[in-house]
Formats: sequence, structure tokens, C-alpha cells
Amino acid sequence: MATAEILTIGTELLLGQLVDTNTAAIAEALAGIGMDVFRETSVGDNEGRIAGAVREALERADAVICAGGLGPTVDDLTREAVAAATGRTLTMDEGALADLSAWFASVGRRMSPNNARQAMFPAGASIIENPKGTAPGFWLDVDNKVIVVMPGPPREMRTMLHEHVVPLLRQRFDLHSVIATRVLRTVGISESELDSRIADLFRTSVNPSIAVLAHINSVDVKLTAKATTREAAHAMIDQLEPEIRRHLGDHIFSSDGASLEEVVGRQLRARGWTLAAAESCTGGLVSELMTSIPGSSDYYLGGVVSYADAVKMEVLGVPAQVLSEHGAVSEQTARSMATGVRSRMRATFGISVTGVAGPSGGSQDKPVGLVYVALANHNDVEVKRLRIPGDREAVRQRAAIAALAMVWRATMERDARPLDPASSQTSPQPVAQKDT
Amino acid sequence: MATAEILTIGTELLLGQLVDTNTAAIAEALAGIGMDVFRETSVGDNEGRIAGAVREALERADAVICAGGLGPTVDDLTREAVAAATGRTLTMDEGALADLSAWFASVGRRMSPNNARQAMFPAGASIIENPKGTAPGFWLDVDNKVIVVMPGPPREMRTMLHEHVVPLLRQRFDLHSVIATRVLRTVGISESELDSRIADLFRTSVNPSIAVLAHINSVDVKLTAKATTREAAHAMIDQLEPEIRRHLGDHIFSSDGASLEEVVGRQLRARGWTLAAAESCTGGLVSELMTSIPGSSDYYLGGVVSYADAVKMEVLGVPAQVLSEHGAVSEQTARSMATGVRSRMRATFGISVTGVAGPSGGSQDKPVGLVYVALANHNDVEVKRLRIPGDREAVRQRAAIAALAMVWRATMERDARPLDPASSQTSPQPVAQKDT
Repeated sequence: MATAEILTIGTELLLGQLVDTNTAAIAEALAGIGMDVFRETSVGDNEGRIAGAVREALERADAVICAGGLGPTVDDLTREAVAAATGRTLTMDEGALADLSAWFASVGRRMSPNNARQAMFPAGASIIENPKGTAPGFWLDVDNKVIVVMPGPPREMRTMLHEHVVPLLRQRFDLHSVIATRVLRTVGISESELDSRIADLFRTSVNPSIAVLAHINSVDVKLTAKATTREAAHAMIDQLEPEIRRHLGDHIFSSDGASLEEVVGRQLRARGWTLAAAESCTGGLVSELMTSIPGSSDYYLGGVVSYADAVKMEVLGVPAQVLSEHGAVSEQTARSMATGVRSRMRATFGISVTGVAGPSGGSQDKPVGLVYVALANHNDVEVKRLRIPGDREAVRQRAAIAALAMVWRATMERDARPLDPASSQTSPQPVAQKDT
Repeated sequence: MATAEILTIGTELLLGQLVDTNTAAIAEALAGIGMDVFRETSVGDNEGRIAGAVREALERADAVICAGGLGPTVDDLTREAVAAATGRTLTMDEGALADLSAWFASVGRRMSPNNARQAMFPAGASIIENPKGTAPGFWLDVDNKVIVVMPGPPREMRTMLHEHVVPLLRQRFDLHSVIATRVLRTVGISESELDSRIADLFRTSVNPSIAVLAHINSVDVKLTAKATTREAAHAMIDQLEPEIRRHLGDHIFSSDGASLEEVVGRQLRARGWTLAAAESCTGGLVSELMTSIPGSSDYYLGGVVSYADAVKMEVLGVPAQVLSEHGAVSEQTARSMATGVRSRMRATFGISVTGVAGPSGGSQDKPVGLVYVALANHNDVEVKRLRIPGDREAVRQRAAIAALAMVWRATMERDARPLDPASSQTSPQPVAQKDT
């Protein structure tokens, strides 16, 4: 098994001015081709310290993967340090220099002498193309080991990593294993409940492995299979997935990485249905999620954020009596908001959310985290009462997801009530022109 | 000058499953007390490799600051590794054990034997309290050097770092310098324009130093001063701040860390004014930002997300003729949306946003990124035409911030038009009851 170490370079990392995201990206890519990583090191832009770290890593591992310090300024010393660590001289590569000059000419800027340093490499290095920036990377064989150096800006590093470095490492170390992953995304089930439902599979399944990843508003189940071909790895996952579905069934809303708002959008579009939202405690989050998807104007008509009770009454038509008798946070108000926005915007579905997001405003009767979500179609309204844990931000996020989940379930039902011919008079009118 | 190394521990870091944010947090705190950090290392949950990394770091630095591997599971081996690296035995601390038992009793759970491991420490260690979790940290003097170990969860680590570890290090290494920072947040000015305006100050000011930090929707100017007392450091910043303000003037909206939505909220509340929003391309983002602030129901009445043209007409009262003649993305529509939502919700101000967020839907006439923002008060409407660069998400974010900036400027004006007595009839009615 080939081993690697990661070395990230930059004084800003050791001053805490920048979080190092390159390490995780490189580590994940190396895990994906079956290389073991036992250590990661960060050093500042100091030639002696970079050279020392390179030498130490090269003693322990088969490959040392570096990122950072390839810029044009005098602070950028990784080229010099790697040359020093391996006893090579730095030489100008005429091809790289010509590419660099051409790039500067193409953007109408003069190349400074400093920039020319980016065309210098330790003797014997192979140059690795940088499609996203001016600094090429390089690959250096040292005895039977390898040093790879990539630029530090994450966008440049990631492209070079995936397009060039991973294939080169795979070839050099004869790595044939392929990792495939699939993420089953769930909604409406807690991490502990999900854990207990798949505990047996969890314990017994080694390849594919099963990981449970909890986010603020959903829980993902990640299946990872290792095989000699992509097809074989996917086949292994295909075999396990139905087992997981049997235990989690109707909580899984996607297996292709799609978010809940994407899945809801696909469902609405496929059925030719439309949605409108009336929001109180979520303050526009449901609308914001729905419209974050390109093309959402095909099925999302709009929403009302009714923070003030006057807006609930005047814009949504919630009766004053409902508000005075039951309060803004009540089943009755949620119901009236959902039917109100549905008919106001002539949508297939009206969804509403009202609740106490906190931190203040709660009472014994209506504590922080109490949320009502209602979904209206042409002939009835379904209301859910939720107790959501967490701070203001968590309550808002989770309430919005609960609302989307309610729409999602309705669009999955077999007896598509909103398409009932009898209801054609209340179905939405075509809308001529929309924003994108 | 005392030196430190950082050691973060966790196999998930070397598999790329987690980005290490602890290193940057620790590095920043150490820079703040004047400790130099020359190296950071990450290793997995392996006793031998942790012990090796601790020993090596202790050779080079005065202090080794570790995070991770203090959990209750058999994978968590940092306690054992530090004991091994320093030739100490692990011993149970009865006080810590009692605290741990009391914690489990208080949440009604049984303490497992594994949990009791969290009360074990290398002989001679001082225990560091963990106000946010069950695993205490510890401090170990080794000859004239120091090892500090903190838990890995960032929330627990940060609290322990700032409340306990930083003061202890300051005392132990007799560090008298104090770092004070102040962030001046700007809106409506690009990073390059801002750079060029303060270029001279930037070059000449070393202490306080000036850093420019660009975010997707704002640019911050961070002033950092080093002195022997907090007061002296703040006085140095107080002296520089007016210079910066002279160059950036009315683009600075806060110097206390407040976000634009917080500042807008404070201004509205202070003046007794209210706001309502009509959004098209931002899809609810303006409402979402405004309502993210606790207590925002005092000044934010609500909003309409008018994605479909029918909603613009029927809910906001945009005339059909305006839409057919000028289109949904036009100065006229923006104007009509702002006045419509203002009068519909009886607010002091109505703000509106309409534009082409992309990726599709653009034309030569109305390209992706074209956005109109309008602000209506009781007697006039101001409209701005913007060309916003970036993808769909960036256009939406930047358009929402431009809208908030417009409200902010209006609330800062000296001649407070909305309070003009002549306009009392159009000023908002008190709203009896609201959501929180």
C-alpha cells in the first residue's frame, strides 16, 4: 500500500488568517485512490522550514503532496525549498516561460521579472499544467519516491489535483482500486432514530461501508464501495441500497446529491403543478430555498412573508377573529395562511409556516420552537404541529425544511388530488411572463 | 519570544472527511498574544503516531497545543499518547470523575465505563475545565516546556482556548503584548477601489496594521494594533480609524462587527420606522436577512416574493401595462413594486428588487446580472440600476445587500423625510400583535 503525506505552505495558515481547506481536498482524493495518509504538516513561507518538512516527510512516505508557495512574490519559496531539499538546481523552463508570456500578452499586461520565477523548476521536474492560473505545478521523482507541488489557491489546486495529479499518482503507484460513493439523503427522521433502524447493517457492512452524516436540517447516509472498476463499485452499492431503503423507506428523498428544494421542484415541474408560500417565523426562507434553483419560476409563483398580524389579515386574508382567538402561532392561523396564499396566488399548493423562532417571544403555552406547518390544496388543508429544538437559526432552518418535506410528500402521492378533473376551476391559471 | 506548535488529531482529518478549522482558531489566538507558530501537524487517532508527533514538536517549540482525541470511544487515544510521549502514567482524577457522573445524572443518562476514561489524565497534569462538553482538557509542564490538550469539537475547543488556555499561556510565558482588532465593514465599494483609496495608509501603517478582507457581498477593513495594554492598543486604533473613514467615508456601516441587516434594524428601531419588501430575483433573501435578527418584528412588517407576474399585479398592484410595456425587469416595475408593498403593508419604507439572476433568462437588452432596486417612502421613490457580476447565487446575494444598503442610507439621512409631520397620515399604523 502506497503512503502519502500532505504539506501545505503559507505563513497566513500559521497566523490563523486562513483556514486550510486544501488538506481535506487532497486527503479525500488520496483516500479515493487508496493511498494512506498518516500525517499532514503546515509550515510558513520560509525556505529552510519548507525544505526541512519536505525532507522529513520524504523519509516516512512514498509521496509528498505539497500545496502553496508558488506565487510570483519574493515570499513564495516552495520552488527553492524543494530544490534545496533534494539537492537540485533551479532551472528556467523555456516552454513554461513562453506560455507565461503568452498569457500576460493575452490579458494585455506586462510580465514582471518576478512573474518569470513561476517558470523555474528543480532540475528533472516534470511540469504540471495549471488550467486555472499562472503558476504551473511540478512532479519530481526522487529515488523511488515522489514529490508533487501544486499552487495554493484552492480553485487552482483542486483542478490540478483532479485532472492531473490523481491520474499520475494512480499510474505511478499502480493503484487499481476505485472508490464509488452514493449519498441517500433523508428528511423527517432524527440521527439517533436513523442509527437505530440501520444499526445491524451498519455493523456488518464493511465494503460498501456506511456512514451517517447529520446536518442541521437533514441526515445523509453515505455508502462507499471499493472495487477494481467503477462499474463493480457501483454494482456493490446498487446491491446495498435497497436494504437501506427497506429500513428508511419514505424518508429518503434523493440518491443523486439533489437537495430537497431541487427534488420538490422536479416533482412540481413533472406534474405541472405550482406552489406559493406564506411564511411567518421562517421569514422568507422557504421562498429563498425554492427560488435558489435555476428555472424555479416554472413552478414557484411567489410568497408572502407575513411578519406583522396586519399583513396576515390584509394580504393573506386571515380573519381577525382567528388571530384574536387562537393567536398568530396556532393551527387555525397556519391553516388560514396556507389557504389564503394559495387562493391569492392561484397555485396548486399553498404552504404556510408560523411559529416561535425565539430567543424571546415564547410562553408556557407556546414555547420557543413551537411551529405549525400547513399545506393547502384545492379541497383540504393538512396541518402539522412541530416542536423544533435549537436556537433561532436552527428553528428557522428546520421549520423551512419541514415545510418543503410536506410539499414533497404531497407531490409523491399516487392519487394526485390537485389534478382531479372536478377541481379544474380552482387549478392555477397559466402565468404569461415570469422572472427567472 | 516564546514559540508554539499546533497538533490536531483525528483520522477524519486525514481522510478528508472534515476540514480542520481548529488550527486557524488556535493560530489566531496565539498570534494575538505574541507567540510564534512555525509548524502545524495533523495525525490520525493512532497512539504511536500521536506520541511521535508530540515528542518531535516538543523538541522544537516551547509549547505544544493539541486538539482532538479526548472523546469517550476506544478510538480516542490522545490521553494515552501524551502519557507515553512524556513517560507518565495515566491516573483517574476523582474530582473530574465526580463532575462527569453529576453531568450524566443531570441529563438523566447512565454513565458508561467508556465515559469514565474522560476523567483520566497523565500524572502531574492540571485539568482544564470544559464548559461546553464532557471532556476536560489538560495542561502538562514538561521540563521547561508545556503541552496543552483540548477536545476536538470546535465549539468546545474555542471556549476552552479563549477562556482558559490563552490566559494560562500568557501567564506562563510572561507575554505582555496585547492585540486589539477592529473591523470596519463597508458596502457599495469594490475591493480594488477600496484598495486604491487607502493604498498610502496601507503601505505606511505597520502597527496598527491594515488588512482588507473581501467577502461575497462586502469588504472589511481590519485594523490590528499591538501594545502592552488593551487600552493602549485601542487608543492606537482610535487614532487610525478617522484616517480610514476620511478615505472611505460613507461606505462604512459598522465598526463593532454588526452585519448590515443588524445596522438597518437598529436604525429603523431607533427612529420608530418600519420596512416591507417586494422581491423578485432575490426570492425572499431580503426578508430572510431582515428577519434573521431577533426582535426584527418591531420594525419589519413583512414582504412579498412576487416571482410570477400575476403576483406582481394582483398582490402588489403593479399595473399590467407597466409589465407589458417595460417588462418585469425594469425601472418602472421596480418602482411600482416598492410603492405597492409599502402601501399594502402600510410601512415607512417599501424596498423592491427585480432582476435577472441567471443562469438563463438573460437577453442582450436585459443581461444576467441586470438588477433594479427601488426604495419608496411616503412621497417619492428612488431607483437604482445595477450590473452585478457573478453566478446566480452571487447575483442574488449582492442584490439583496444592495437593497439593504439603500434602506441603510435612507435611515442615515439627516432630513428624516418619513417623519415629516405632513406625512403623518401615510405613516404606518401601530400593529397590535406580531410574531417573534
